[in-house]
Amino acid sequence: MPDDASGPRRYTRAAIETWMASVFRATGMPDEDAKLVARLMSEADLFGGDGHGIIRIPNYVKRLQGGGYNPRPHIRIARERGGMAIVDGDDGMGHLVMHFATQEAIRRAKEHGIAWVGSRNSNHAGAAHVYARMPMAHDMIGLYAAVGSANHFPPWGGTELLLSTNPIAIALPTDKEPPVVLDMATTVSSMGKIKQAEIRGEKLPEGWVIDRDGNPITDPKEAHHGFLLPIGGPKGYGLCFALGALAGTLNGAAFGRNVVDFNADATSKTNTGQFICALSIDAFMDVMEYRHEMDDLVRQMKSSPKLNGVEEIRLPGERSWHTHIERQKIGIPVPLALQRQLDDVADRLGVGRLG
Amino acid sequence: MPDDASGPRRYTRAAIETWMASVFRATGMPDEDAKLVARLMSEADLFGGDGHGIIRIPNYVKRLQGGGYNPRPHIRIARERGGMAIVDGDDGMGHLVMHFATQEAIRRAKEHGIAWVGSRNSNHAGAAHVYARMPMAHDMIGLYAAVGSANHFPPWGGTELLLSTNPIAIALPTDKEPPVVLDMATTVSSMGKIKQAEIRGEKLPEGWVIDRDGNPITDPKEAHHGFLLPIGGPKGYGLCFALGALAGTLNGAAFGRNVVDFNADATSKTNTGQFICALSIDAFMDVMEYRHEMDDLVRQMKSSPKLNGVEEIRLPGERSWHTHIERQKIGIPVPLALQRQLDDVADRLGVGRLG
Repeated sequence: MPDDASGPRRYTRAAIETWMASVFRATGMPDEDAKLVARLMSEADLFGGDGHGIIRIPNYVKRLQGGGYNPRPHIRIARERGGMAIVDGDDGMGHLVMHFATQEAIRRAKEHGIAWVGSRNSNHAGAAHVYARMPMAHDMIGLYAAVGSANHFPPWGGTELLLSTNPIAIALPTDKEPPVVLDMATTVSSMGKIKQAEIRGEKLPEGWVIDRDGNPITDPKEAHHGFLLPIGGPKGYGLCFALGALAGTLNGAAFGRNVVDFNADATSKTNTGQFICALSIDAFMDVMEYRHEMDDLVRQMKSSPKLNGVEEIRLPGERSWHTHIERQKIGIPVPLALQRQLDDVADRLGVGRLG
Repeated sequence: MPDDASGPRRYTRAAIETWMASVFRATGMPDEDAKLVARLMSEADLFGGDGHGIIRIPNYVKRLQGGGYNPRPHIRIARERGGMAIVDGDDGMGHLVMHFATQEAIRRAKEHGIAWVGSRNSNHAGAAHVYARMPMAHDMIGLYAAVGSANHFPPWGGTELLLSTNPIAIALPTDKEPPVVLDMATTVSSMGKIKQAEIRGEKLPEGWVIDRDGNPITDPKEAHHGFLLPIGGPKGYGLCFALGALAGTLNGAAFGRNVVDFNADATSKTNTGQFICALSIDAFMDVMEYRHEMDDLVRQMKSSPKLNGVEEIRLPGERSWHTHIERQKIGIPVPLALQRQLDDVADRLGVGRLG
């Protein structure tokens, strides 16, 4: 579709996936890995998480070429006991590491009812919900959290950037209703959303980023000079810290001062940590009974009385569910500013441009 | 200590525990159960969670006498598989049910590295951190969540009270530093804090409770006419929903419209749900290495530069840690208004008064 007054140019998911795979192959990644990362990234785009999909190509390529990422990692289980394992990602792309870890969690949850798999020597894995969703195909609930890939805010009351957006995602299957999929940064905004605003030339709402004197920063280009704000003030700080300890420290991964800013540094290993927890519903109750209960809960929320002026009550993940259906039909938008960056990447790697 | 101008009367933890146990025995609870609930409740008081300890005695007694609570429950494992179990609380006090569930989680985590134990037919269990802390004595991390025992806010954009404060607690052991213990409602304030403000005769800060037109309610006595506000707006709503599905629906427990307001109703069974997850650190890494890493993280935060006007950077649970040390020395304060309620309970049950 042409890039005209009707909005940004759109591409099918298949086109985006094929092109991204060609980019990754050109950096030296094995074909199978290139395709897998492209599939997981395009899933983020499909669900409307435009800050976590194709937009990340320029930086990922920079790190693959700079030595920060290992293009041919040997991903392996470093420790294991019954319902848990730690996966060593060998500095490969986080998508590969967390895909491996999630498959491992699903396998172990089948046997033990629940499994928790952590990662170390991993990297930025894109959209959190992509991994939390995976167990759903096996009648499981997924719970994912990660140490963010750059520090963006201080401990409550401080000024040194020691904490990242440390996101949490929880995916709850349903029956007829869209699955309930929470995916939230522990900060009011994720860096992905700020990147999107920058690409679209939009201002940031007040309350997302403040400067060192507490004044709002609304220019996305200036966001890196400020602090992101945690949700609920000290509560978001506390939740972020606890998730960081679970996803980072407990796995032998980075958290706190040793987190590498992967946008600013293309050469250093990041030792990123994440975890995925899979809960096998049939260990807890009859799967169909659970699905019906979830449908009923969703309908309770959606059919309940609304505040004046509110059109619709939504469940977590509902908007992105509808986006993914829409984008399957009309394609994934790629703003012109991003398209230029992607063309530049393609030209430098000697692969065909997207489109 | 006398109740004079120096503040409320204070009691040792032992005095409070002994008195509460006598109250529970008088309602027909077995001696061992009465002592255990009294111990867990007084732990909340010791750590400064004044909304979740002795303050709850009048309502607990009302429900024990009203038939809402089963004073002699047969708590048992209803389902199990490797790393998970569901505990059926037989409508006993939530403290007993979650103590049983947490011991079960610790036992299973020793074998499987991790365990997740849910509850059904449970009840209000008091302070979340009490259960999250238990695994720490076994070199484990504890993660607890619960469906709150009354609905206090609507889904985002709605007006029907379908959601509770659904708290989450995460307890992370350290070495020399105080353990990091997050304990937060997914709402800006818990009902416990509002109860405390009422007992102390204090106003509520704006941002805790709003009325149906969005205006702040600052009189704690009027709070039940309004809505609690979730942290981070729709994010807190989403987190609350996901925790409710995990702690309630997945365990076959109540969540949504079938939650019983245990303050307003002394006779109905609540079918409360909670879960506790225990992670055995030695499955993940060397325990002392983990403890040193955590100490280092805590020190990074605490020694980092502060905003102007900030005296100290705190970690989650730090303030309550110091409170528990202080209260071990100087006792637990019982405001006069609460003392009168407790005296009344004692008189009606024919047990000695506290003090």
